[in-house]
Amino acid sequence: MLFRTIVSEGIAHNSYIVGSGGVAAVIDPRRDYEVFLDIADQSETVITHIFETHRNEDYFVGSRDLAARCGAGIYHGRQLPFAYGVPVKEGDRFRFGSLEIAVLETPGHTEESISLVLRDLAVSPDPYMIFSGDTIFSGDIARTDFFGKDRNAEMAAKIFDSINNKILALGDGVIICPAHGAGSVCGGEITDHLFTTVGYERRTNRQIKMGREAFIRQRVTESPYVPPYFRHMEKYNLGEGHATGDVSHSRPLGISQVHDLMKSGAQIVDIRSPTSFSGGYIRDSLSIWREGIPAFAGWFLSYEKPIILVDDFNVGLDMVFRHFGRLGYDNITGYLAGGFPAWSRGAQEIAVIDTCSVQQLKGRLEKETPYILDVRDIKNYNSVGHIRGAHHIYVGELPQRLAEIPKNEHVVICCDAGYKGSLAASILARNRYHDISNVLGGMQAWVRAGFPVEKSP
Amino acid sequence: MLFRTIVSEGIAHNSYIVGSGGVAAVIDPRRDYEVFLDIADQSETVITHIFETHRNEDYFVGSRDLAARCGAGIYHGRQLPFAYGVPVKEGDRFRFGSLEIAVLETPGHTEESISLVLRDLAVSPDPYMIFSGDTIFSGDIARTDFFGKDRNAEMAAKIFDSINNKILALGDGVIICPAHGAGSVCGGEITDHLFTTVGYERRTNRQIKMGREAFIRQRVTESPYVPPYFRHMEKYNLGEGHATGDVSHSRPLGISQVHDLMKSGAQIVDIRSPTSFSGGYIRDSLSIWREGIPAFAGWFLSYEKPIILVDDFNVGLDMVFRHFGRLGYDNITGYLAGGFPAWSRGAQEIAVIDTCSVQQLKGRLEKETPYILDVRDIKNYNSVGHIRGAHHIYVGELPQRLAEIPKNEHVVICCDAGYKGSLAASILARNRYHDISNVLGGMQAWVRAGFPVEKSP
Amino acid sequence: MLFRTIVSEGIAHNSYIVGSGGVAAVIDPRRDYEVFLDIADQSETVITHIFETHRNEDYFVGSRDLAARCGAGIYHGRQLPFAYGVPVKEGDRFRFGSLEIAVLETPGHTEESISLVLRDLAVSPDPYMIFSGDTIFSGDIARTDFFGKDRNAEMAAKIFDSINNKILALGDGVIICPAHGAGSVCGGEITDHLFTTVGYERRTNRQIKMGREAFIRQRVTESPYVPPYFRHMEKYNLGEGHATGDVSHSRPLGISQVHDLMKSGAQIVDIRSPTSFSGGYIRDSLSIWREGIPAFAGWFLSYEKPIILVDDFNVGLDMVFRHFGRLGYDNITGYLAGGFPAWSRGAQEIAVIDTCSVQQLKGRLEKETPYILDVRDIKNYNSVGHIRGAHHIYVGELPQRLAEIPKNEHVVICCDAGYKGSLAASILARNRYHDISNVLGGMQAWVRAGFPVEKSP
Amino acid sequence: MLFRTIVSEGIAHNSYIVGSGGVAAVIDPRRDYEVFLDIADQSETVITHIFETHRNEDYFVGSRDLAARCGAGIYHGRQLPFAYGVPVKEGDRFRFGSLEIAVLETPGHTEESISLVLRDLAVSPDPYMIFSGDTIFSGDIARTDFFGKDRNAEMAAKIFDSINNKILALGDGVIICPAHGAGSVCGGEITDHLFTTVGYERRTNRQIKMGREAFIRQRVTESPYVPPYFRHMEKYNLGEGHATGDVSHSRPLGISQVHDLMKSGAQIVDIRSPTSFSGGYIRDSLSIWREGIPAFAGWFLSYEKPIILVDDFNVGLDMVFRHFGRLGYDNITGYLAGGFPAWSRGAQEIAVIDTCSVQQLKGRLEKETPYILDVRDIKNYNSVGHIRGAHHIYVGELPQRLAEIPKNEHVVICCDAGYKGSLAASILARNRYHDISNVLGGMQAWVRAGFPVEKSP
Repeated sequence: MLFRTIVSEGIAHNSYIVGSGGVAAVIDPRRDYEVFLDIADQSETVITHIFETHRNEDYFVGSRDLAARCGAGIYHGRQLPFAYGVPVKEGDRFRFGSLEIAVLETPGHTEESISLVLRDLAVSPDPYMIFSGDTIFSGDIARTDFFGKDRNAEMAAKIFDSINNKILALGDGVIICPAHGAGSVCGGEITDHLFTTVGYERRTNRQIKMGREAFIRQRVTESPYVPPYFRHMEKYNLGEGHATGDVSHSRPLGISQVHDLMKSGAQIVDIRSPTSFSGGYIRDSLSIWREGIPAFAGWFLSYEKPIILVDDFNVGLDMVFRHFGRLGYDNITGYLAGGFPAWSRGAQEIAVIDTCSVQQLKGRLEKETPYILDVRDIKNYNSVGHIRGAHHIYVGELPQRLAEIPKNEHVVICCDAGYKGSLAASILARNRYHDISNVLGGMQAWVRAGFPVEKSP
Repeated sequence: MLFRTIVSEGIAHNSYIVGSGGVAAVIDPRRDYEVFLDIADQSETVITHIFETHRNEDYFVGSRDLAARCGAGIYHGRQLPFAYGVPVKEGDRFRFGSLEIAVLETPGHTEESISLVLRDLAVSPDPYMIFSGDTIFSGDIARTDFFGKDRNAEMAAKIFDSINNKILALGDGVIICPAHGAGSVCGGEITDHLFTTVGYERRTNRQIKMGREAFIRQRVTESPYVPPYFRHMEKYNLGEGHATGDVSHSRPLGISQVHDLMKSGAQIVDIRSPTSFSGGYIRDSLSIWREGIPAFAGWFLSYEKPIILVDDFNVGLDMVFRHFGRLGYDNITGYLAGGFPAWSRGAQEIAVIDTCSVQQLKGRLEKETPYILDVRDIKNYNSVGHIRGAHHIYVGELPQRLAEIPKNEHVVICCDAGYKGSLAASILARNRYHDISNVLGGMQAWVRAGFPVEKSP
Repeated sequence: MLFRTIVSEGIAHNSYIVGSGGVAAVIDPRRDYEVFLDIADQSETVITHIFETHRNEDYFVGSRDLAARCGAGIYHGRQLPFAYGVPVKEGDRFRFGSLEIAVLETPGHTEESISLVLRDLAVSPDPYMIFSGDTIFSGDIARTDFFGKDRNAEMAAKIFDSINNKILALGDGVIICPAHGAGSVCGGEITDHLFTTVGYERRTNRQIKMGREAFIRQRVTESPYVPPYFRHMEKYNLGEGHATGDVSHSRPLGISQVHDLMKSGAQIVDIRSPTSFSGGYIRDSLSIWREGIPAFAGWFLSYEKPIILVDDFNVGLDMVFRHFGRLGYDNITGYLAGGFPAWSRGAQEIAVIDTCSVQQLKGRLEKETPYILDVRDIKNYNSVGHIRGAHHIYVGELPQRLAEIPKNEHVVICCDAGYKGSLAASILARNRYHDISNVLGGMQAWVRAGFPVEKSP
Repeated sequence: MLFRTIVSEGIAHNSYIVGSGGVAAVIDPRRDYEVFLDIADQSETVITHIFETHRNEDYFVGSRDLAARCGAGIYHGRQLPFAYGVPVKEGDRFRFGSLEIAVLETPGHTEESISLVLRDLAVSPDPYMIFSGDTIFSGDIARTDFFGKDRNAEMAAKIFDSINNKILALGDGVIICPAHGAGSVCGGEITDHLFTTVGYERRTNRQIKMGREAFIRQRVTESPYVPPYFRHMEKYNLGEGHATGDVSHSRPLGISQVHDLMKSGAQIVDIRSPTSFSGGYIRDSLSIWREGIPAFAGWFLSYEKPIILVDDFNVGLDMVFRHFGRLGYDNITGYLAGGFPAWSRGAQEIAVIDTCSVQQLKGRLEKETPYILDVRDIKNYNSVGHIRGAHHIYVGELPQRLAEIPKNEHVVICCDAGYKGSLAASILARNRYHDISNVLGGMQAWVRAGFPVEKSP
């Protein structure tokens, strides 16, 4: 039995390929699909089926491109009017060598969500695995807020019932292969386990264990963040537009090219670390460290205007391009040749942002009362606590809530570790805030230093 | 949580690396250990512990070499006098970030066999996984014959109790990560599942389901094959001798070098296909097709005399070198430069072996009564059936049982698919049998052609 | 200065990338162009120009696909009506950082052939290198027969003058970077040097040293082979049709799929060695060993009907797909899953061809007088000599000259090393010759064995 | 003919492998020698000879390790008492297939320097190539100062005569393959050409063209920098000590491990960019950007005390490890896990250094008179010119000349581009200079901005 999990870090997404007897299915293929063909080739296997557990919001699915290369059919839930593929319904069965995939309709995260039960009939008619998409995750249940506050309770009930009545009912020994791991925007408490089992979740999953009513009650009070790029993904993943699997090339740009592109609206994304950014950057850049791209690019970047990257040494950019590509950004025009040092050597204007350590901040707070802006997500803000007097605005919502932040005060920006703070600082600087500081190490450092923390009641 | 399964095909062996918080353990590292360091590096993790679930018989374990590179400690069962490492006992616990590994003593396959229970204490005190070594496999229970016929019942009882009382007792939802997959010499019915669960095995594992008494009764009747190289592995894996992880280089040899080496006892291994071998080969070669090396090299090849490989195009030899290295063969002196065609071009003597298709064989049998030699393993021989009048000698035992085969008759060699038949033919030819034919496609072809099959009563 | 030679083995073709200051030119890009983008990326360089030294006959040029990916302009000679790109003329100059490329019109191989002189103006106005395309090679001058016998003298004069008056005139110290190395069909005496110099060629190139008149006289007597696929390349390389750089994927095919495709005209290409092929093959296959594809596929294979590959172990097929792709074959439908052994196991009909060693042939010739068919190229036939009584037909011309070969005699096929003989044997077998033998090792073995050779007067 | 140039960037070193007929020679192998075995394997070639053109000062030669793997002999000049290998003398000849390598004794750079003339006897007895080691480079002649000022004239005469009488005498068409390219510490004017020819150098090499007397006169006035690590290399390359080819692994270190190692004398090397370093670093770090390691590590780092690396994202460290390994640094204990941001998150003390743009510096200089420290090499300082009032101390000599720099003044550090300035700033900071600024972009930015420059008379 061919079985491989393909993890896309950053978006914390799992694709799967499973096969037997020279034929295979891919579940939820990521956009840079070459990996599936490589695995299939190595085992002399043909990919004949591609299943989508649901219409994804958080990444470009690679189904259509992969199908174009290998001739597979695409299958997905029947509750959405996809412009491609074949709808399937509860009980539909597909055979791959000795394997059988059976469809469970498991709505909740979305209406058309399905789960796929895998049996190896050469061994037993018992279920062996389930590809659970965005229903149950390791330690978590997928978010249910996509249809608005009005329907959150309804969708929460649906997902709980899908899990309880259909997935848990398969028996403790069934392996669960979810579509996301820890860090995904589709679940807030996902544990860092690549896969799990019905039994392990039944005994340890906090959301399952709280029971149906408590779960629904909790869900109604929550409103997870919805990055704006979700709308773009939804359209594309429903069948609009076209993309290709090649997400890895871009070109070096000279200083004059960067200026020309900026004049025509280019977006500069500085992928360096907080210290490197603060020590010198191109005015109006957005500071998104390289590993933060999957989580934050989709909050701030347009799909139309060109994007220019700025690094220190232009090392390992291939992974950066992939991160963008998986979010559907095909407008990465290039990167600054020679990195930021080339900008310095070129005698170009260098913008800087003040930073401070938590020790320095502690000292300052004893003498001054700056405006403390805390840009962490609200869960982290509530659970870890905050510096006395801090004002909370999640970094993703900053552009919409700038009016709340005073322009004539010193703004000290604090996040978990210093990265989101650098991003927030870059947003303020673009909006002509001139007196801002980013706290290196953020609340992690503050807490580790033993400095006092307040918690909201 | 860092978790990766490293599969070594051919020996069908699984190594694991599991870690958290920057520290990791490796379970049963294979000899070409570079892969573990690469995985650790990618996740900024240090390998601090190496566990051996038991002293292996079927491959060179990489523990000592890996430990020399990364400074990890080595841990194994306490019932054998290992010359290295630290003995552990039931209940010993090791912590890796949020993970805990606890030792279960699970004798049966060997006396010192242990299993390792993994818990993620950040999630739950419940067990999450078990690394079961050579106790339970997917669909099978490890062999228990290593201590001789006298103790087979005793060891069978031990392994059944280890599984029943300790592993199954962990609960249906626990994931089982065994040390071997389908094709291993350590189990005859292993299914082709990379991992399994307690629940799935409880419900589907034939050997578990038959019950303790039936299981022991069955074991007593069985005597699985013991390739001679096991003795070499046992010594090395107990701590004798030394090896290095580098198993991938060898050198091209010219014709005159091959002759010189042959004069001093070199062993020629022809890794080509049955048709290529039979169409022309170097006299006295052993025909072991490239993918058959893990299973058959250890039956026939000495660790002292140099080994020379012969291929057609010398493509993909890196994997061939690895196969040999994993069995501890460091005496691969080189390979024939230019492949067998260079031997032809060099006007060297070309030996040939007759082959026939099953259709041809069927025709011949209507007119002649050759000596039919069936070299499949006994399980396959019994379950598939055989050609009327066939004499069964397993290919591995051929050198010891040559006296049973007449020299003055036409010997038709039959196996499952034609590969082992080519190997058997090469052994007969080395022993001056001159009238031999290998059946291309073997019994698979015979059965598919619809020709008559007999089964032993 | 960025400088890299990209060698495509088999077609013995050299592409070049040369650049400075972040901009680069590619000369004669091969079809699988990814390598150029990778090199450019590594050095933060943009490919802005693609030069074609002439319209190639022997491989698919990658210019249009590469240009589509990197935005470069394409430049070539002005004497042909290309459907794409920009014509250049003598004296045109292009600047890349400190480098300058100047155009020399150097007709002879084709009318529109150009050479490109490279200067590094940061060092000196002296010429540093010349990209000579198909004019001068290491030790050879390109063929001049493409315009027919009538114009061979004219073209030979042109190429000699191009070399003598323009290239040699640059001075002994200029490095020559030719478009082909040893083994190319574009020159018969190319030495195995990756690059050369004006001085080295002036002193050692036999064709230059013989002088203009002798050179022309010799050319008039020669008629190099013209594989049929040249016509396809010429059309494509002039701008007809379209292709993509991806030449590396294909799919495994089961036995029933192979039968279905064969019914609809599929071409089976057996890429195994002569011994493997002769020992068992699928009836009507064409035997072209994997490394012989660049030289021989274009003689026999249609671009329309599907192509199916047969190997032993399906190892290293990626390179095989590239070989086909570089000749423009996009009709590789797949390869037999499991290799030829799967055919045997499937109880399919197995065809065989007799082989013999040169010692056996010698023995037979003392008793019999078979029809000896020598299929080497005529140069090799003449220079090495042949077996008494041999009939010469070049393997490429065999399909057109079958009428010369008796069907009722035993045909012994002899080539240089046994490979072309296997190909010739497969062609005869397809044409219902039933009594054929291929001589393993060919004339190389015959000569090495010290057997008598005749030379034509 | 097998021919490949293996470039080691940073040390700008060229190794070569050249072979024919299945045997090959390597010239001046770099330490990470795996590449030579890989190339040899791909072409079914055995490396039988390793030539060292001279005892190298600037990198660990890989001869002994490579020889241990492939069994080759090592050959070098006879004027030094090497502890290994075989001395060769003028006129010695070695045969590789159709190739011949002949030894020329070409003293000057060192006494035992040799050059190796390559002929392809299958083509011509004329010389084809010369491996010129450290005698002639593209555009330059190797340094001649290693025997002290007293013997500089003598060695300069020797090298000029070696080049003029032996190398140029081979004829214009001979290809020159030197041991170094642009950027090497062994020559100050090397052009960026991978290889050159006798003719091209005769016409364009400034040092050759100036004539013997002028060349010697110029050499006597020069004293190139001698990094301290040269002494270590000299010892090792003469045969002292032992190393292995594996230079690529290291381990992640937690904060507490870093503290422990620092207490026992560990050297922290910060490989980040100038802006990232200045924005926050671990006190007492040495700032050497990743690409500066080959040139600067050997000036400042001990071979005994452990070295710890600090990066931002720990991306591409493999190349960093190689850089260190090629200089013989086997004491890279590890790198800070999580990069510098982990240090921030850990609430550790963060040191900072002030930076300024050239525009800011210009403004400051109108109001203040800081101590301007220019740390470029003297050639750059003289040729480009400097800021009025600047004090020149080459960064490599800074530790020895700290007494010249006032501790109670503001020290503005200026170099070419900002990197060496960051290194110099880190050295001053370790020596308790508290009021220092590094000029981002250095003199390149200053000149590009059009600011005034002075030149020494």
